[in-house]
Amino acid sequence: MTTASIAGVTLTTKANVYFDGKCVSHSYQLADGTKQSVGVVLPATLTFGTAAAEIMECVAGSCEYKLDGSNEWKKSGPGEKFSVPANSKFDIRVTEAYHYICHYA
Amino acid sequence: MTTASIAGVTLTTKANVYFDGKCVSHSYQLADGTKQSVGVVLPATLTFGTAAAEIMECVAGSCEYKLDGSNEWKKSGPGEKFSVPANSKFDIRVTEAYHYICHYA
Repeated sequence: MTTASIAGVTLTTKANVYFDGKCVSHSYQLADGTKQSVGVVLPATLTFGTAAAEIMECVAGSCEYKLDGSNEWKKSGPGEKFSVPANSKFDIRVTEAYHYICHYA
Repeated sequence: MTTASIAGVTLTTKANVYFDGKCVSHSYQLADGTKQSVGVVLPATLTFGTAAAEIMECVAGSCEYKLDGSNEWKKSGPGEKFSVPANSKFDIRVTEAYHYICHYA
């Protein structure tokens, strides 16, 4: 099951643009104040750093990711999630656009 | 006054990607069912076609636009809007990311 839409959110209108637009997201808050974002990573290989821990949920497309300290690329597709620790980083390799929800854990 | 956030929306999680990512938007519905989108155009000169009439509202950055049948480039910055007729097109020229809300008129 993929999460196609999310109701009752307060949406920030200005986008977050990373890596010259290879990743674009829009942030929002749920009714309870929880902050999340929806975004897309376009074909590229990138390294993202985390401050807070994150859970990346795929809603369309797919990616391969490699957590810091791992040598293993794993695939994540629609409906699948992966977790990234706080103050860490991960590599992401995308060949078809990877659409995601970023949850802060 | 720019529109920094919009409350009570149902957000579609999958992005709309146009022109190889030079424009990325996320669609949503207001509580009354009105459909809109928030998006960003990265530095580029592009031509967009319209089906429904649109009102483009700038929330950050700026663009220059030229409506179909016009020879005049006009600038649109934060808090400013411009209207595009249905079944028409417009050119947009962006040198700093143009963040917008697209209202269907």
